[in-house]
Amino acid sequence: MDHILLTPGPTPLPPSVYKVMAEPLLHHRTSEFGAVFQRVIDDLKLVYRTKNEVLMMTASGTGAMESAVVNLLTPGDKTLVQETGAFGERFTKILKAYGLSPVVVAETWGHAADLQKLRDALKANPGLKAVFFQHTDTSTGVVNDLKALAAAVHEVQPDALVVVDAISGLAAEELETDLWNLDVVLTGSQKGLMAPPGLAFAAVNERSWKACDAARLPRFHLDWRTIRKSLPKKETPWTPAVTIVTAQAESLRLIREEGIENVWKRTAELAAYTRAEVQKLGLTLFAKDPADILTGVNLPPDVDGKKLIKDIREQDHISIAGGQLHLEGKIVRIAHMGYIKKADVDAGLKALAKRLAPTHA
Amino acid sequence: MDHILLTPGPTPLPPSVYKVMAEPLLHHRTSEFGAVFQRVIDDLKLVYRTKNEVLMMTASGTGAMESAVVNLLTPGDKTLVQETGAFGERFTKILKAYGLSPVVVAETWGHAADLQKLRDALKANPGLKAVFFQHTDTSTGVVNDLKALAAAVHEVQPDALVVVDAISGLAAEELETDLWNLDVVLTGSQKGLMAPPGLAFAAVNERSWKACDAARLPRFHLDWRTIRKSLPKKETPWTPAVTIVTAQAESLRLIREEGIENVWKRTAELAAYTRAEVQKLGLTLFAKDPADILTGVNLPPDVDGKKLIKDIREQDHISIAGGQLHLEGKIVRIAHMGYIKKADVDAGLKALAKRLAPTHA
Repeated sequence: MDHILLTPGPTPLPPSVYKVMAEPLLHHRTSEFGAVFQRVIDDLKLVYRTKNEVLMMTASGTGAMESAVVNLLTPGDKTLVQETGAFGERFTKILKAYGLSPVVVAETWGHAADLQKLRDALKANPGLKAVFFQHTDTSTGVVNDLKALAAAVHEVQPDALVVVDAISGLAAEELETDLWNLDVVLTGSQKGLMAPPGLAFAAVNERSWKACDAARLPRFHLDWRTIRKSLPKKETPWTPAVTIVTAQAESLRLIREEGIENVWKRTAELAAYTRAEVQKLGLTLFAKDPADILTGVNLPPDVDGKKLIKDIREQDHISIAGGQLHLEGKIVRIAHMGYIKKADVDAGLKALAKRLAPTHA
Repeated sequence: MDHILLTPGPTPLPPSVYKVMAEPLLHHRTSEFGAVFQRVIDDLKLVYRTKNEVLMMTASGTGAMESAVVNLLTPGDKTLVQETGAFGERFTKILKAYGLSPVVVAETWGHAADLQKLRDALKANPGLKAVFFQHTDTSTGVVNDLKALAAAVHEVQPDALVVVDAISGLAAEELETDLWNLDVVLTGSQKGLMAPPGLAFAAVNERSWKACDAARLPRFHLDWRTIRKSLPKKETPWTPAVTIVTAQAESLRLIREEGIENVWKRTAELAAYTRAEVQKLGLTLFAKDPADILTGVNLPPDVDGKKLIKDIREQDHISIAGGQLHLEGKIVRIAHMGYIKKADVDAGLKALAKRLAPTHA
């Protein structure tokens, strides 16, 4: 029985990606692997819209977030986290785990970052070493105006680094690493990049490299300096998740062929369609500043959201995500990024309508 | 063209493992995934020969090694590393990256740990918090007598934890986590466990959990406490490498069906065969205490080892590993663990003999 994934990562894989994973395993210290590795790095630069170095890590997205903290900072450094959901909170938790005390600017869940509030916080907290953002926050389905937010940081605190978690947004929504002056941009293989989970990436610019060399937090397997040294050899310092690297090369080939602007456009169109259809069902949207990667849908108060998702998964064979933390049971999240198609979204909406219909649609 | 992997990780995958990777991707917060996850954990306990909790991490083996350091130790802790090759040196490097100054007992490469030397070092350095070992060191192809070494630690310093890197040795050579009182045993998916690289595991006993709770080195995505909390939910706290988890479940099924003692026996027989055949070619063995996972072969001094390996890879489509660090170009390493078969080893030996024959065989 085919199962439809409407979850915001892992997202479904294109058929040709499954196919390359069935090919004989490459050894990671060979020229054959080096060629695949280099294609991944080169194609990622097109997706990131950057000339910066791109680093590959075998880790969850959370590992990529941690890598930015340990590679850029020194005990005592001042930092700021712009929280717009659970993943902003995760940056705060990681910083605290390393003994840092970040300034937190938190938005109500469902709202994007408020530019004026951020500017005020930047002015009130001079001497920041780094400011942490989400491109899109998967927990709430909002998209942040990174272009304006990054410009504010660079204007008010020119020495502060702009660190962006684009794990769920990259290769789905517009992002311009170089044009917007994003110092570090993190992502993962399993969302817009249409590969299985297991790889994480960081695009790192020159001034971030200076910070990396000066940083004193301890690190080893996620040490960007070691990973950078292996780049000219077209390999990683530690054994990488080889099957996911080959999968990633194939999905990036598909993205390159489609063109990244076309990917953004397609994702935006499917998002607009989903938002309209949801409202036709008499349901309301959770996010005030909705992202194109997924649509958060408020459930009527008398609906048991956890049971709803379970029923849809078990009876209709469709995975829809629920709410995270305090939103558990209260919203559902329908993803429409990566290889998710209109027909998949339609099936998800139909399953939702069927269950909510008797009383609410 | 089929390519033969005789490298000590990644090792070749059984056909049924490729097959499960081609199945539709599971979402990691579902009961379907939970069942696969639990099979991996349960079957790993059979392989580890332990009743301890087994933790899953999405990381290279080096990440697993780092996880033991950050989860067990506090700045200022006294530690000892028993080095028998490049991977022992890696423990030392990780400890130093975290500001610790381990006592190092180093053997000449090719020799296993010397029990008396270790006992002397244990007596001379009281108050050790942890002692680090390799089960087998992949760089030299030696196997350590863990049973005796661990007993010495527990006798001389009952409070010191025995931490074992069994990344290349587990599911290939005899290892008894519980019977030998090994406090922490680390491994990776890509060697004896016959899955692609990308997952790492740690078997952690009760007294190590006490150390983990008291440890003060910083950690987040590799924090064993967080990973432990997710075990009853049959999941990992961060998105895992799902395709490798399903692959690992299948290869563990094969190991369970064969029986772990039979795996050890089969590996030992193929190792003995390889060592005998190598010597029939007029070549000598590198390791004085050879492991069953791989055979290190000394090359005649006039042979360019790097070119030899490249030629065999490109002309015969067989990957054989060379020497690491100061052994580069001087030895070759023929693996015979996991899904490597006698026919594969024969093909590798033939390719080697053909090139060394005119002058040396």
